[in-house]
Parts: sequence; C-alpha cells; structure tokens
Amino acid sequence: MTRRMLTEDGLIRIIQRTVKRRGQVRLGIGDDAAVLKDGTVVTTDAYAEGVHFDLSYMSLRAVGERCACGAISDVVAMAAEPEALFVSLSLPRPPPGARCAPGGPAAATRELYRGIESVCAEMSCEVAGGDIIVADRLLLAFTVTGRTRAPRLRSGAQPGDRLYVTGCLGSAEAGRMVLAERAGNHNRSPRPGTKNGRSSLVRRHLRPVPRLAAMKALRHSIHGLTDTSDGIATDARHISEMSRVRIELEADSLPIEAATSRFCAQRGLDPVDFVLGAGEDYELLFTTARRVPAEVSGVRVTAVGRVEKGRGLWIRRAGLTLPVKVSGYDHLGSMLGKTCD
Amino acid sequence: MTRRMLTEDGLIRIIQRTVKRRGQVRLGIGDDAAVLKDGTVVTTDAYAEGVHFDLSYMSLRAVGERCACGAISDVVAMAAEPEALFVSLSLPRPPPGARCAPGGPAAATRELYRGIESVCAEMSCEVAGGDIIVADRLLLAFTVTGRTRAPRLRSGAQPGDRLYVTGCLGSAEAGRMVLAERAGNHNRSPRPGTKNGRSSLVRRHLRPVPRLAAMKALRHSIHGLTDTSDGIATDARHISEMSRVRIELEADSLPIEAATSRFCAQRGLDPVDFVLGAGEDYELLFTTARRVPAEVSGVRVTAVGRVEKGRGLWIRRAGLTLPVKVSGYDHLGSMLGKTCD
Repeated sequence: MTRRMLTEDGLIRIIQRTVKRRGQVRLGIGDDAAVLKDGTVVTTDAYAEGVHFDLSYMSLRAVGERCACGAISDVVAMAAEPEALFVSLSLPRPPPGARCAPGGPAAATRELYRGIESVCAEMSCEVAGGDIIVADRLLLAFTVTGRTRAPRLRSGAQPGDRLYVTGCLGSAEAGRMVLAERAGNHNRSPRPGTKNGRSSLVRRHLRPVPRLAAMKALRHSIHGLTDTSDGIATDARHISEMSRVRIELEADSLPIEAATSRFCAQRGLDPVDFVLGAGEDYELLFTTARRVPAEVSGVRVTAVGRVEKGRGLWIRRAGLTLPVKVSGYDHLGSMLGKTCD
Repeated sequence: MTRRMLTEDGLIRIIQRTVKRRGQVRLGIGDDAAVLKDGTVVTTDAYAEGVHFDLSYMSLRAVGERCACGAISDVVAMAAEPEALFVSLSLPRPPPGARCAPGGPAAATRELYRGIESVCAEMSCEVAGGDIIVADRLLLAFTVTGRTRAPRLRSGAQPGDRLYVTGCLGSAEAGRMVLAERAGNHNRSPRPGTKNGRSSLVRRHLRPVPRLAAMKALRHSIHGLTDTSDGIATDARHISEMSRVRIELEADSLPIEAATSRFCAQRGLDPVDFVLGAGEDYELLFTTARRVPAEVSGVRVTAVGRVEKGRGLWIRRAGLTLPVKVSGYDHLGSMLGKTCD
C-alpha cells in the first residue's frame, strides 16, 4: 500500500472502473457533460462555500450567478443550447436561537435563486426543479440539460487544426485574488493603484459569461471543444489526451488583458505561467481546420496553438518548445492530500 | 415581520415566485420530477450524513444503495423508466495528518459507487457522470433521467378513482428506528425479543426497492401517481391538492407488516398514526378507475382509499371520518426552525 496524492482524475478512474455501461447513454463519464441516447446533454457541477466561492466578498446573488454560469458553461462546451437547470441546495443550519435576519434561510434562498434566474434568463434556460437540505455550510449542486444535434467533444481535435480560445485568459482568477486581497485588507488603507482597471477582472470572477452566442456561430466548424474551467494547461491537455494528438501552445499568442498583466507585474508573477494555471474563465477552447475571424458575436477569438500528430501538451516560448508542466489547481487533490491506493 | 416555521413547501413557493417559465420545460417545479419538452423526465435529490442516513449503523455501500433507490424512485413515480444517473459527491475532508485507512476518500468513493451501481444494474440505469468536491461531511446529490411516453402526475387523480399503494407502509421507518436503537444500545445486552422479525424492516430501510416492474405493469391504467417518500399522509395530500379532489383513506385497509405492528405495540405507538407519518418506503401511491389485482409483478397492492369531488385529506376510522392532521416529518422545517418571512 503506497501513499500518494489523490487527484480528481484518479477518483474519476476509480468510478469508471466501478460502474458499467449498459447502452442507455451515448457518451458517459469523461467529457464536460454526458450525452443521452436521444442527444440530450446533461452535466452536474457542485460548489461549496470556502472552496469554490467566498461569502466574505460575494453576495448570495453573485454566488447564484457565478455557480449557474459555471454549470451552464459545461453544456455550452458540448456545443449544446442550455434548456433546463436543477439545483440541489444545502443550506447551513442557522445557529441555535438565531433571530430574524436578512441572511435567514428564506432570504438566502431568494437571493441565490435571483442570481441563478438572471443567468437563466440570458441563456434562455429554465429552472425546472431541485431539492433543499440543511447541513453545515452552503453547497450548490447544479444539473443542466441542453440540446444539440451534433455534440462537439474533447476527443474531436484533428492534426492540422488550429487551437482557439474566446475572450482572455486569467482574468477571473486575477479578479478572485483582487477580491480576496481587498477582503483581507479591508481595515487598512488601499495600496496606491490597486483599483486601476481592476473592475473588469472582478466582474469576470463574479459573473463569467458562458459563450453561448459565439458557440452557436462557430459550432459547425468546430472539431474538438471544451471550456477553460481548470486553466488552459489542464483543459488543453484534456483535448490532447482524449483526441490522442500533440498540442503546441504559442506563449506570445495567449490573450491576456492589460489589467491582468499589470496585476502579475505588481506581484512578480510570470503572466504566461499565471494564465496557464488560472481556471474558471469559462471561455471556449476549441480546434478547427477553418480560419476563425478575430471577433465572433462580439467576443474576441484568438489562435493560441496548433494540433499535430503525436502526443502531449507543449508550449513554444522565446524560440524554445518545451513540455507544459504547469497544471490547473486541483481543488480536490489539494484538499484530500496524500491517501492510499 | 413575523416569525413562523419555515417549511419545505414554503421554500418551494419562494423559488416558484423567483424563477420564470420560458417554454423550455413541459412540467417544472412541483411534482416528483420535471418533464422536458421531448418527454425526458429529470429529478434531483440530495442526502446528507446525519440527516438522511447515519454512518454509525450503515456501510458506505448501503448509503450508496439507499440514496440511489430514493432518487430513482422519483423517476419511477412519474411512470418513467430510469435511464441515466449523475452523482454530485461531497466528501468530508480527512483530518490533518490522517494515516492510510480503509475509509479514505478513494475507498469511500469506491464503496459508495458499488452501492449505486448495484441499484442501477437492477433498474437498467447507467451512471453517466458527476462531480466530486470536498467539504465538511458526506453529501450526495443525485440527478436521475428517465423516459416515458405518458408521464403520470400527482395532478391526475379523478373523482371515482380508488387509491392504491404497493407493499407495506412504515416498514422503512420502523427499520431505521430499530437500527438507531441498536446503535445506541450496542454496549448493553439486547432487549429480549428485539430481533424477532426485524430483519425485513431493517432491509427495507437499508435497501428500499423502487417499484419499477409494478409501475410498468400498471401504468396504462394509472391516473394520479407519486411515491411514498414523505409518509402517506403528506404524499396523499400532495395528490389531493394537485388534483383538486377529496381523498378519504380507510384506516383498517392500510397495509402494515406484522413486524411493524409488533414494533409499534412494544413502544406504545398507534400503528395507524405511525404509518401515516412514516416516510421513505418508496412505494407507489396511485389512483385508478380500474380494479387492481392484490398482487402485481410479485408485489402486494392494496386499495387504501377513494377519490371524490371536494377537497382535503380524510381518514375513516372506527366509524368516524376525520381530517388527517398527521403530517410526514419535515426534515427541512425542523432543522431551519422559526424564521422570518
């Protein structure tokens, strides 16, 4: 019996070995979502207070928005249009003898659902059901269904394709760090310049936008598709592994907002390393053999690499081609720590 | 601002007022499951350690079985055949410096999924996806999808129907209480007679069986349908309210196992009151205008009441007809306590 780091991928392999396929499902565990026999796309995503969001600087409405965006993005990342959303809500138990307060369970439920509903309205999606339980802290588990005639998978990339990403990388993570620093420093005077250009980063953390319109405009030419939920290093690696291709990223092409570059410079962070591992932008990451315009449905689209025969994820930087070692942050692995096989 | 008991139904009304219908869903919040435009049935159900199951007397495999049964039963209670199951799993964080142990996160995940898979195998259902996070305690949120050409709803009961239930009432709750008592008394010598005939009750708590075969045999003649997840008083009231009919239960007809009657007698409990409020048997509760045989697909079926014009839930007992006041246990309300509007 050995002790080693247990990763999310490791737990998924355990589950895949334990359950059996029985022909009820066209595409099961392993992509952004499953595809049922009739083409219905289904995804499930869970979020916990203190792990995936922080109530010290987020309102409950923002939590509802942010988590709904993340879950809906998984359906968009299958080239499907979101249809219905289901919420399993675990509310924290009120302290014994708690008095009426605006944060009570009825008000909390209303605020969370206002956030969820505002995202659903934008995505033509409908809250269709759910369950509510009481436990120790706020947890939300979302299921989103969607429709598509032709799902696009992580396994669809082909040698000769170019790799594209919508929007900018790293903005959401930089925004999260700005908010966390502000919350930590709220009793001190602000550092000079800390608010310059930061609001776009903060907005991208609090309210990511699933790229539904861009996906609909592009889907017919897309080969391989996922969203940048774990950071482009991990997400591009998923495409590379599942499509059994070599992907080479171009460091100078990675789209990084000026505010993110300034954020990195102030903290002595290398901006390329930072965005390789920065997750939760929920941008589309896709491969196609066609040329894609620099803007689609009002969203910037950037070629960031190419797909070739071979294996592995590489990055071309300052004239050198190196294997990508930076990984996205494994929330799960870091919290489980070392464990037994 | 008033303080009053917040109930699960109260929270559902808040949610219904907050979200909007936009024609994506045929049947939304309010029944055992939702029905999408193409007829796909979807339900979401959450379970927390210490609220819905107790690890002091249940193995992780039994937890997986029991929770999967409960979630799948909601799809069966729409007259649909289960198709795919999705699990959002929240694992408890291991204590700092914890050593390798059989209960570690990898082993726990494997055992939970073995239980889930064993139920799926029986129901021709397939585990098709999920998510795993780490939080304070074990929580499972299930989504189950199913297929039916003609869903049967809580709102389908018609005056002139008879009300039927499969199996026996109260067995699962009696079984749960037996297990909890044994766990509390494990250091003392057993009470004489405490194990007589109890194993069937315990089995019914640990491993309820969604009544898929009976539903398939009966569905063409069923009008109104739900499952007994909250206790027949609450579940029959749901049919009565949503069908806008009067339902009269017949106390002497309620099917109660001999072991449950003995269990009640030993504790001075009135068996009719006990079974009216005892949930989680996951039996079919349905109304039909046809006569139903006493056994269908190997399962006992009992006429327990009739559907009439009017409103409300009533019980005929010892020559008197009285309104049913006993309600199922509101897990949620009891944990939230009094709260503000």
